[in-house]
Amino acid sequence: MQSVYVAGVGMTKFGKDPRPLAEIFCQAAKLAVGAAELDKIDALYIGVLNPEEFTGDSNIASLIADAIGLTGIPALRIETASSAGAAALMAGFQAIASGYYRRVLVLGGEKMTHLTTSAATRVLAGVIDKRERQCGATMPALAAMMTEKYRQKSRISESRLSNMLCAVALKNHANGAHNPLAQFQRAIKREAYFASKFVATPLRLYDCAPITDGAAGVVLSSEKTDVCLSGIGQGTGTLSLQDREVFTSFPATKVAAARAYRMADVSAQNIDFAEVHDAFTPFEIISTEDLGFFPPGKGGDAVLDGKTALAGTLPVNLSGGLKARGHPVGASGLAQVVEVVKTLRGETWSKREFKRGLAQSTGGLGTNNFVTILQRTNAAAVQDLWPLGGSENGANHKTVAAPPAQQADEGVIETFTILYVTPDGFLPPLALALIRTPEGRLLMAQGEDESQLKIGQEVYLRRIDGVCLFTVKGQIQKVQDAFMKLFRRKAATPAPKDNRKEAPK
Amino acid sequence: MQSVYVAGVGMTKFGKDPRPLAEIFCQAAKLAVGAAELDKIDALYIGVLNPEEFTGDSNIASLIADAIGLTGIPALRIETASSAGAAALMAGFQAIASGYYRRVLVLGGEKMTHLTTSAATRVLAGVIDKRERQCGATMPALAAMMTEKYRQKSRISESRLSNMLCAVALKNHANGAHNPLAQFQRAIKREAYFASKFVATPLRLYDCAPITDGAAGVVLSSEKTDVCLSGIGQGTGTLSLQDREVFTSFPATKVAAARAYRMADVSAQNIDFAEVHDAFTPFEIISTEDLGFFPPGKGGDAVLDGKTALAGTLPVNLSGGLKARGHPVGASGLAQVVEVVKTLRGETWSKREFKRGLAQSTGGLGTNNFVTILQRTNAAAVQDLWPLGGSENGANHKTVAAPPAQQADEGVIETFTILYVTPDGFLPPLALALIRTPEGRLLMAQGEDESQLKIGQEVYLRRIDGVCLFTVKGQIQKVQDAFMKLFRRKAATPAPKDNRKEAPK
Repeated sequence: MQSVYVAGVGMTKFGKDPRPLAEIFCQAAKLAVGAAELDKIDALYIGVLNPEEFTGDSNIASLIADAIGLTGIPALRIETASSAGAAALMAGFQAIASGYYRRVLVLGGEKMTHLTTSAATRVLAGVIDKRERQCGATMPALAAMMTEKYRQKSRISESRLSNMLCAVALKNHANGAHNPLAQFQRAIKREAYFASKFVATPLRLYDCAPITDGAAGVVLSSEKTDVCLSGIGQGTGTLSLQDREVFTSFPATKVAAARAYRMADVSAQNIDFAEVHDAFTPFEIISTEDLGFFPPGKGGDAVLDGKTALAGTLPVNLSGGLKARGHPVGASGLAQVVEVVKTLRGETWSKREFKRGLAQSTGGLGTNNFVTILQRTNAAAVQDLWPLGGSENGANHKTVAAPPAQQADEGVIETFTILYVTPDGFLPPLALALIRTPEGRLLMAQGEDESQLKIGQEVYLRRIDGVCLFTVKGQIQKVQDAFMKLFRRKAATPAPKDNRKEAPK
Repeated sequence: MQSVYVAGVGMTKFGKDPRPLAEIFCQAAKLAVGAAELDKIDALYIGVLNPEEFTGDSNIASLIADAIGLTGIPALRIETASSAGAAALMAGFQAIASGYYRRVLVLGGEKMTHLTTSAATRVLAGVIDKRERQCGATMPALAAMMTEKYRQKSRISESRLSNMLCAVALKNHANGAHNPLAQFQRAIKREAYFASKFVATPLRLYDCAPITDGAAGVVLSSEKTDVCLSGIGQGTGTLSLQDREVFTSFPATKVAAARAYRMADVSAQNIDFAEVHDAFTPFEIISTEDLGFFPPGKGGDAVLDGKTALAGTLPVNLSGGLKARGHPVGASGLAQVVEVVKTLRGETWSKREFKRGLAQSTGGLGTNNFVTILQRTNAAAVQDLWPLGGSENGANHKTVAAPPAQQADEGVIETFTILYVTPDGFLPPLALALIRTPEGRLLMAQGEDESQLKIGQEVYLRRIDGVCLFTVKGQIQKVQDAFMKLFRRKAATPAPKDNRKEAPK
């Protein structure tokens, strides 16, 4: 089996880019191919989330092949929501590993800033479950609900959680200040973080990666270079939040990591630094736990303790991460790989010498995740072979039952958020919660009032036009409830006698 | 290197399917996995053109993984316009050939019939070049323009061309009558063909594949079965028609075929039967030439001579093809493979014994094409190794120049069509033509009048809101033209003298 090496990397300056999408891709391609110093590329693998709706570009693989001036070259478009760049790397890796191609150019890119925030939010919200979207849920809303549950499960106070999230944002912005290709190249202050508005409680503006244009390119080759792609893995997770069993980690990352570690024959302890998908600051914390860098519930402490800073035991997002480098969705998974390769080569600000780096990319709400391990070939023996694949690497192949008729009229809040930046057609503030019904099922629901929300709160449910609405049970309602139950029991008491008389003998 | 085999195939009944897209995919998956009799699949490769705009489904890889009940399994979405099903097969093939996975499930599908014809046409037209779309061009319009040019170049009379196209339609409908999964299972008569309306001259309704829902599935495995995937290749072509050098064949098919033949160590003469992408009847004729089955310009004669019928030397589209089986765009490239495998196994109506079959899939207007060769493993020695890839297989890696300022005010019709089924916002009949300017460039233009169109006709050009319009030069205009040129020459004659007087000395 063929080992796979990185021959060249490149990326555009992330941020607002006035050029058409094809030109942005084209620049990344030229930079990567130029760095690889190759005269020939066998095929293109292109990761992009939704050019159809972002820029009106369909048939993007042929479009990009044309734009690069490689008409005739085989070109595939790969898509797995916001991890599309990493997905394209996976497909390109398999193409070289098979021996079918010798050198492929992997590209990832997206153009988004020409849309309004609300329009871009609507397109991005397309990646979440339809039923949850109908409630007005967005990616920030679902990320916020996971965060609220994570806080409760990990027994972290509200203020300590805020400090943890703030620490991630401050670290990544400080790192981004050293990255000339980052969208934001300015450190931010604690005061600015706490002054920033809530997007969806408990997430503030500074907890969310920005809307960005950009593209990244990686040339993979079967010829040995200084950096080897030594491990790669992928896992998927349940699309909807309400059908999940776990809200405080991403099983898809664990599946992907297990595969990548096994292939590279290493464990989390052998990783020197990582680029982690911090589309939201809590995702960085959760992902460092899923990757095995820190125990569950302890990722936030690690940030506060400086473990993920440059001088720490496991530097995370030295590039600034999605938070400061920016997040052109289809590009991010590949931009991470570009950053890891540059850092391994000592081409970035860090000046620390590393042997092995990891990139972790998240698709949607952790529904399609990738882990890639890259290492210097002069630093350690490279595995030339790896065991034949299988899905014994922890994939959770369970059958998802079809949703039964959902007619519960009450339940308990499992987690919640108040959404301040809503998609088209929904007015802020919008209270959203996952409600656990008496039968144990979860339902995404819209609050009729955004006050008195907390995990464990009892609520009433009703349905209008397929959307589930909840009202918090007040004290008076609880008394009324108890009275009604008593009344129903009393009213029901004499009934059996009368009925027995009329029963057939 | 790992050989790749087909372990199981399945597809849904094509046609109007009321179920959601995920359920249609789910049925194809169950049929293919059931036929493969496997207890475990390592990954999913999903081909689909535009679920975002057809059905509002984003993040489709995770959605399908969930729907099939394989949450956690790695799942990639692959897209190359209307060849997406074949593209997913390519990616799945490379995954097994690399040894990274042992068994993958490849799926292709689309849901389209719930949209109006004009809305579906708009989404499908997204795959063509933006500038050509702005003129009102659709896939049928561009296919028609290629056909008109093909007729002229091959020196075929209008009536003989009609007979050729009619023969393809009649053959494929007659074949489809034997296919229980085809959308149309009824032979049609010559009179019905000629009574059907023009969609875009010279193409009638019966020259165009229908709008269809459906999905297909193929399980690929590293374990030997009765059918081997012995060759596969891909090529891309220029996106726009106006930037092409060739209008009468698809170079992308030639590139793909060269690679597939080389890998399988066979030539066109060794192919026993084929499934060819007949989205339009002339595409079947052109593709059989590009594949090397018949010389250029002779594909139509082959159909009239019965060579592509069941009893012929090279039966084409025994399944009914896209024309009669239906064309759920993302499914078609994979459905062809399903049909080839079934035919090799003797599970179809044909009763002829075949050793080796070929499937050819076309993305967009021949911009991203695939050729796959499948053969019975008990019928011939199977290549266990194939040479390392390269792009020396004929890919035309030329740089496409950026469009220069197009200010020509006259030109000559290179090819044309009259479009009767127009996309939203354009009224039929719509005359469209490729105009060759005096500088040798091609421009897509809208006719101000649909009469007097023929290849070689001189026209005037003008531009309104970025759309180029043409008017046929009439006899009177030509006289006026000649007069104006004479007048301008006369008026210009004394000028140099006057100018010289005022020139600085």
